[in-house]
Amino acid sequence: MNKGRLEAFSDGVLAIIITIMVLEIKVPHGRELADLKPLIPVFLSYVLSFIYVGIYWNNHHHMMHTVRRVNGSILWANLHLLFWLSLIPFVTGWMGENHFSPTPLALYGVVLLMASIAYFILQNLIIKSHGHTSLLAKAIGKDIKGKISPILYLIAIGSSWLSQSFSGGIYILVALIWLIPDKRIERTITENPPKH
Amino acid sequence: MNKGRLEAFSDGVLAIIITIMVLEIKVPHGRELADLKPLIPVFLSYVLSFIYVGIYWNNHHHMMHTVRRVNGSILWANLHLLFWLSLIPFVTGWMGENHFSPTPLALYGVVLLMASIAYFILQNLIIKSHGHTSLLAKAIGKDIKGKISPILYLIAIGSSWLSQSFSGGIYILVALIWLIPDKRIERTITENPPKH
Amino acid sequence: MNKGRLEAFSDGVLAIIITIMVLEIKVPHGRELADLKPLIPVFLSYVLSFIYVGIYWNNHHHMMHTVRRVNGSILWANLHLLFWLSLIPFVTGWMGENHFSPTPLALYGVVLLMASIAYFILQNLIIKSHGHTSLLAKAIGKDIKGKISPILYLIAIGSSWLSQSFSGGIYILVALIWLIPDKRIERTITENPPKH
Amino acid sequence: MNKGRLEAFSDGVLAIIITIMVLEIKVPHGRELADLKPLIPVFLSYVLSFIYVGIYWNNHHHMMHTVRRVNGSILWANLHLLFWLSLIPFVTGWMGENHFSPTPLALYGVVLLMASIAYFILQNLIIKSHGHTSLLAKAIGKDIKGKISPILYLIAIGSSWLSQSFSGGIYILVALIWLIPDKRIERTITENPPKH
Repeated sequence: MNKGRLEAFSDGVLAIIITIMVLEIKVPHGRELADLKPLIPVFLSYVLSFIYVGIYWNNHHHMMHTVRRVNGSILWANLHLLFWLSLIPFVTGWMGENHFSPTPLALYGVVLLMASIAYFILQNLIIKSHGHTSLLAKAIGKDIKGKISPILYLIAIGSSWLSQSFSGGIYILVALIWLIPDKRIERTITENPPKH
Repeated sequence: MNKGRLEAFSDGVLAIIITIMVLEIKVPHGRELADLKPLIPVFLSYVLSFIYVGIYWNNHHHMMHTVRRVNGSILWANLHLLFWLSLIPFVTGWMGENHFSPTPLALYGVVLLMASIAYFILQNLIIKSHGHTSLLAKAIGKDIKGKISPILYLIAIGSSWLSQSFSGGIYILVALIWLIPDKRIERTITENPPKH
Repeated sequence: MNKGRLEAFSDGVLAIIITIMVLEIKVPHGRELADLKPLIPVFLSYVLSFIYVGIYWNNHHHMMHTVRRVNGSILWANLHLLFWLSLIPFVTGWMGENHFSPTPLALYGVVLLMASIAYFILQNLIIKSHGHTSLLAKAIGKDIKGKISPILYLIAIGSSWLSQSFSGGIYILVALIWLIPDKRIERTITENPPKH
Repeated sequence: MNKGRLEAFSDGVLAIIITIMVLEIKVPHGRELADLKPLIPVFLSYVLSFIYVGIYWNNHHHMMHTVRRVNGSILWANLHLLFWLSLIPFVTGWMGENHFSPTPLALYGVVLLMASIAYFILQNLIIKSHGHTSLLAKAIGKDIKGKISPILYLIAIGSSWLSQSFSGGIYILVALIWLIPDKRIERTITENPPKH
């Protein structure tokens, strides 16, 4: 079983997800700068989701780099991850069009939470299949980022009815945590080049 | 003739099919949880179709893995399969928006039936081209799943005007049959690694 | 310059073209079989265009198989071809929604004509770059299909205001001409395997 | 870190951007040639943006050809470029639907400006990672085109409220500057084939 098509299919789905989100930014009827104003929350949620999908693509890219063989469970765990990510354009559109009001804000977090759980499952299946001494197991180490993110999402979901800014701020915080260069896998790979 | 582009093109089409289906889940105007309620049938049909396209991608991936040469007939049989799969977003949307009412439910089955026939034709053309002692011929064996699925679809189509739950249950059943790990090709390939 | 990304990008664009056409088949509001009736011309034009894009993908696949090096002119001639093909969803939708009325029928032909000219230019640039004794030059020979198609499109365009059936019939005829297995390149390649 | 998936993902996103732009050309309700007339500005802006995305794909293709290793910064700089390019369908639609009126015309330039800056950042990160004696550094030389384009965009943005034709003319001019075959990278690569 080779991983080439798994990567190609995932790249395809992620590329489409990241691009069709822009279709939610509907061309306004007016022709003045003021006509763009109602689009600002839609645009901001687009930026946030673009970064999230970018992070997933980036991490997926690094994780798959360590994979040597693919089995049925990995294929389905990957599809499960893509399923939750495929809902991002919908929740992004709903959140943006409703100016980050509580329920859409919470649902956005639910989809991010489910995606992070799906990623965790995929990661564990790969480690299970490749052994606890494998490259990926070494690279993620204690996986603090991976464990703290779902907790932060839960806090954001719960607090969205109390303070929208606090909840939204957490989503930005999680994105920043992941944006900070994560040299773990890169470094581990450099030190332990995979043998093909 | 190499199979690389056939796989790349099929991956592209399947990735787009699976992702544009989500565009049928239209962002609601309201901002409350209750505003999502009318979307539940649309969402459920999205989940079902996502799994079906996932199964086709999975099976296509395994089948193509055994292919060594591609000819014109295989290219067109593959396009024929993609044609029927490309109609899934349409029938999914129609079925979901009409709360699984009889006619859309039956049409959903018709498209699944045609796709399964197209898959059968593609599979047979590959076996014909590679020989009855080929990897794929060995791997599928009696192909019970492949033969029972069209029959189940026919039953589901016929019964959709009698009982929508029964008919819908069959679509879920067929998906489950295919979701149960099918180790045939995987095992056969492990035992008979293709010589490139 | 390698041809890998040229193929990947073309596959991507063709996969999207062939799939977004299905978005023109709008989900009807009613839930009966009769509600699908107005969609019949839209569906028929979808089938025709699916076959045309399939033929282009198929021919592109074969032609690129003979290419050894890619230069700037080939990249742009390829983008020029993709430009005209990208208009197919638009003219397909317009033709289908207007029940094959004269002007949309003629415009459909204009886009097919321009695509065939763009294909001809691309083919000639490849031959020019690879030499008249190259694989592609041998394979296409006198290129009767390539030369007769634009003439047939012109006849179809001109006759669409006289008889829609005659004009539409020609589009079907050209598709059939190309669907008939064209063993030229396949055979020539088998006899002269490319040296990589 | 290999560059294969970076190219595949970028190809996917660019292929989708170039193709979904065509969805902005909405199928008209009438069936006469006159019904297409309001679409002319939309079509012209589609042509311009198609060429721009084509240029970016072309340049990206050439630039990536010189890349030997990819790191986290390059991945994100590439996503940053794709982000600005992903906004092209939106500004193209807005500009076309408003017949090139000043504000949409200026915003079109802003997105092109940001994309050119993103491209510049990506290019510099690659040179930084590969050394100033690298293939890309040699190939781009003084990078006159890359430096003059942002200046021209700024002029076009500023002048869009004074003269729409002048501003639009500059966008066409920049496209032409890039369309003129840029043999730099091609020639440099031919003279210094990358060692894999």
